[in-house]
Amino acid sequence: MEKSFRQWKKQCLNKLDQSKKGSVDRDIEHVVSLLNSREEFFTTSSCSGRTILIDGAPDSSDIQKQNCAWLFVSHHKCTLDDLMSGLRRANGDAVLKFEPAVLHVQCRRLEDAQLLHSVAVNSGFRNSGLTVGKMGKIISAVRSTHGLEVPLTHNGKLLVDHQYIHFLTQTANQKMEENLKRIHRFYQNLQSALSAEKLPISDQLGSLELQHPQKMPEGEKEESNKNVYTRRRRRLHETDPNDEECNGSQPELGDCLSLFT
Amino acid sequence: MEKSFRQWKKQCLNKLDQSKKGSVDRDIEHVVSLLNSREEFFTTSSCSGRTILIDGAPDSSDIQKQNCAWLFVSHHKCTLDDLMSGLRRANGDAVLKFEPAVLHVQCRRLEDAQLLHSVAVNSGFRNSGLTVGKMGKIISAVRSTHGLEVPLTHNGKLLVDHQYIHFLTQTANQKMEENLKRIHRFYQNLQSALSAEKLPISDQLGSLELQHPQKMPEGEKEESNKNVYTRRRRRLHETDPNDEECNGSQPELGDCLSLFT
Repeated sequence: MEKSFRQWKKQCLNKLDQSKKGSVDRDIEHVVSLLNSREEFFTTSSCSGRTILIDGAPDSSDIQKQNCAWLFVSHHKCTLDDLMSGLRRANGDAVLKFEPAVLHVQCRRLEDAQLLHSVAVNSGFRNSGLTVGKMGKIISAVRSTHGLEVPLTHNGKLLVDHQYIHFLTQTANQKMEENLKRIHRFYQNLQSALSAEKLPISDQLGSLELQHPQKMPEGEKEESNKNVYTRRRRRLHETDPNDEECNGSQPELGDCLSLFT
Repeated sequence: MEKSFRQWKKQCLNKLDQSKKGSVDRDIEHVVSLLNSREEFFTTSSCSGRTILIDGAPDSSDIQKQNCAWLFVSHHKCTLDDLMSGLRRANGDAVLKFEPAVLHVQCRRLEDAQLLHSVAVNSGFRNSGLTVGKMGKIISAVRSTHGLEVPLTHNGKLLVDHQYIHFLTQTANQKMEENLKRIHRFYQNLQSALSAEKLPISDQLGSLELQHPQKMPEGEKEESNKNVYTRRRRRLHETDPNDEECNGSQPELGDCLSLFT
């Protein structure tokens, strides 16, 4: 098992990058490098977050979206002109989306995946989760919630005015900024967790309490402490702080393994 | 461990429902009942999917959304009037969201969670994932991707016209329909998987191939078969069929345990 993980890792990292771009997105490169430098992890895919404009067939369901055309993609901030020139090429139902960072990490043991999952959830990646394959393959998916999904054309006809698209550009760019902060927080928390990992569990809380605040940039300190040290009750939906509208019979719902709580 | 799972289940199901509504959403009740009737599962929370309108503070980040006000919530289809009367009460930055069904299910053993996860992913709930807690608590979260997130007001001022909101109403209602189909597919696939579960693994494929098509309503047959029996390559982002824009070095990414593939 140990041997097969090492083989998987070697095989995966030696493969050609199958993405069109052929390389890891710049803003998530440091996270990918940190994970791949550890013997218990390797990344199988990554995206630093992106703003996209896709043109779909009118009235198509999610499943039929296979046939959509890409009008615009950016992993950085975008401008009104970017979106407008993309929209001019729309023939069907174009939709603007902001998709936050995603990482898939293969993990040696379940405990390694649990640690990574805990760091992800505590850093704001609240749609994260594990997958355990039938061949013993353990993947930890680091996922945030979707940030924006706005229909903009119907049968190629623009449904909103330029001012609204200008507002959307700002909204998407704010979400990109928040997304980069979240990647940074994940990187910092991961570093702390990995450096504490070699200590016995009972010592980890103490060592993290000492180490962690020193590693945080001044402005992030309070928020990160809150995220890492507080026992968080996970919400059913991301948008609903109390989520009293839906059924939830267990108060500690979603409390996940966390060395920090 | 076996005993503690039974105790957890008893304790959880005896607790008062902590949601405002005090009951499970009608459209997901049959799934909740099926899971709770099995000794290896119990649900800790559920939502059948909803269209919501929330009013947030302008320029607030995701974290500060705690202070948002709810202008409208519906677990069924909505009308233009529903949304317009909600929007009239907006003071800040109101956003329309469609949030698909969510389920959190505590599972007795990791294998039970794997089975449920496999059924979820193969039924279209592609943001699903497991969480393994430090006390041995195993939760399988059944999650789809977000369907809609549209900013509609800024500082209480409407950014779009009525015609666009009418279009959004139709879009949200289509998504609700697709969401109900997905719940139905999950229920059918879960029934098949649970009835096949007692057979030795080598017999399961055969028995499912015989059983499954008979249980499907006529119109759904082809699509469901495709979802259940085909080995699916999981995409990095839900919207991107090929996802060649982002780094992905492993073709079988996300292939998860599946008794059906």
